[in-house]
Amino acid sequence: MAVGAIASAPFFTSCIPDNGETATLGAPPTQKVYNWKAVTTWPPNFPVLGEAMVNIAKELEVMSSGRLKIKVYGAGELVPAFEAFDAVAQGVAQICHGASYYWAGNIPAAVFFASVPFGLNAQQMNSWLLYGGGLELWRELYDQFGLIPFPAGNTGVQMGGWFNKEINSIEDFKGLKMRIPGLGGKVINKAGGSAITVAGGEIYTNLERGNIDATEWIGPYHDYKMGFHKIAKYYYYPGWHEPGTTLEMFLNKEAYEELPADLQEMVESVTLKYNHLVLSEFEAKNNAFLEKMMDEGVQLKEFPKSVLDSLKKYSTEVIEELIEDDEFGQRIYASFKAFKEESNSWNKTTEGAMAPYL
Amino acid sequence: MAVGAIASAPFFTSCIPDNGETATLGAPPTQKVYNWKAVTTWPPNFPVLGEAMVNIAKELEVMSSGRLKIKVYGAGELVPAFEAFDAVAQGVAQICHGASYYWAGNIPAAVFFASVPFGLNAQQMNSWLLYGGGLELWRELYDQFGLIPFPAGNTGVQMGGWFNKEINSIEDFKGLKMRIPGLGGKVINKAGGSAITVAGGEIYTNLERGNIDATEWIGPYHDYKMGFHKIAKYYYYPGWHEPGTTLEMFLNKEAYEELPADLQEMVESVTLKYNHLVLSEFEAKNNAFLEKMMDEGVQLKEFPKSVLDSLKKYSTEVIEELIEDDEFGQRIYASFKAFKEESNSWNKTTEGAMAPYL
Repeated sequence: MAVGAIASAPFFTSCIPDNGETATLGAPPTQKVYNWKAVTTWPPNFPVLGEAMVNIAKELEVMSSGRLKIKVYGAGELVPAFEAFDAVAQGVAQICHGASYYWAGNIPAAVFFASVPFGLNAQQMNSWLLYGGGLELWRELYDQFGLIPFPAGNTGVQMGGWFNKEINSIEDFKGLKMRIPGLGGKVINKAGGSAITVAGGEIYTNLERGNIDATEWIGPYHDYKMGFHKIAKYYYYPGWHEPGTTLEMFLNKEAYEELPADLQEMVESVTLKYNHLVLSEFEAKNNAFLEKMMDEGVQLKEFPKSVLDSLKKYSTEVIEELIEDDEFGQRIYASFKAFKEESNSWNKTTEGAMAPYL
Repeated sequence: MAVGAIASAPFFTSCIPDNGETATLGAPPTQKVYNWKAVTTWPPNFPVLGEAMVNIAKELEVMSSGRLKIKVYGAGELVPAFEAFDAVAQGVAQICHGASYYWAGNIPAAVFFASVPFGLNAQQMNSWLLYGGGLELWRELYDQFGLIPFPAGNTGVQMGGWFNKEINSIEDFKGLKMRIPGLGGKVINKAGGSAITVAGGEIYTNLERGNIDATEWIGPYHDYKMGFHKIAKYYYYPGWHEPGTTLEMFLNKEAYEELPADLQEMVESVTLKYNHLVLSEFEAKNNAFLEKMMDEGVQLKEFPKSVLDSLKKYSTEVIEELIEDDEFGQRIYASFKAFKEESNSWNKTTEGAMAPYL
């Protein structure tokens, strides 16, 4: 039996030969260079979330030996954050990194692929999307716009937000002005509060001046950089409105399909890699920043059970209203709900039963 | 401003040009073909775990356009399962997919990179390894053998195992003959039982004949295929002995370093992709198989709190004895323990607080 094809390196000389298989070159990769643009919904240099797209681009350039070069633009650098969807659909850019609930204005059902109040946690989102039929539905939804989505990160359970007023009962939301977007905001409105839209860069001043009583953001690592702990009394948990937000990377489908098979495979691989790296980074860093804030005087508080029970009731109403007249949305919710029921049952036998002993 | 380099596809004609950047070819990838061998610790055609290595190989071949071809061998096809470590160290194969606790006979501290009783769950393992210093320690440990490891899958919380005897107190382990390898086995011995080694293919018969009273395996999806539900009365949870087992893929370091940068990046990317795909697949499939078994008559039972408390006490002793005379092991355990403490605290504020409401 012959020595393997690459016998030059010393350790290969002891190789057991490969059963007569001979080395054959695959189809030689095309040398065409793709110069692409990626837009994001994140401000330039945004830690973790924005970095993910920058790193995905860098790694794709290395993997493709420079055949796929992606220039990454922060929000507002090429197009405003909330125009990123259209920009990729129209081919102004080939890629966007963001979160699907940003497109809920035009596509309400898109929220299920990011996070809904009292929805799925990160591990459950990944299981539903990748092995429970979620990604197929997501692809079908975005296909109508000529786009192809991938899960590309997860924040984990977010925090409940910053409050300058104590929340002891659901009544305490009455008249509360809170900066909270999306379905969470609709839930706050149902509870008698006012969900207010404030751009990221203006939240601090609004909270400091008392124009708003509360705001949600992400979690300790990010929130610390925003400085909210300097001007808010209480930091509440858990983040019922976003229990495991999936980030997305979507591509212009025509551009994606033009790529040769090797580059397509690279795009999928590195994106799914970051789908779990982003979560792992948040999970590794959040606690240290939470402790830092507490050392600096913030009071950590848990929403009472009665409050969470009420918010959950309102959340179900909000979700059902969202898809009332949307047949495709109803299909997605049916899949989401069925998976959630199974997954919660399994969770009780595994993570749930184990957690108190770890 | 010129139209982008790849203006032939229709949608590119509307591209905003790329700020004068010109298309440049990266270093052209070398056309050298690497014909590699991968061994695994899994039987041939082993669902999920064995499939992971097969899929990693397939995807690497596509991504590299055939420049990296890996032939995958199940346990015993090239070398026996437990000789895989040496085989890769010696260059008989270039890659192994397995779990690091299989090498504990020679490298006791390797267990921390798979799972230890009452250790970290899957999400925590990923955070520790990828952003908490774990992987650096793992690399340092394996470097002594000329190997470079990557996390390459996770089983999630395993099940507590199959029993033909009810466990109501820690006393019930006295005299119990249980097939349970590794540190879990040492804990069972401390509890007065007998940890017994039985090869995978012989467990069924041994349990059926009463040679053993109990056995652990993985979780419902895998266990169903083993058929244990037909011959055991009780299926216990949670799997305290393996709360989130990380699988590994390690390479002969010299072989890895011989690869050009693009292929190295592909190996890392696809391996980390499977690190979370394996978990997602288990999490998506386990519940349906658990329900199937229960429909077929198995009784699902939870270990009482007093039993888990005792097993946890013994587990701490077993871990401390393991690294007593192993300075490097003590360094790893210190990192593991410090991360666990932080991470458990964070878990209580997030997953833990949210779980009852999902």
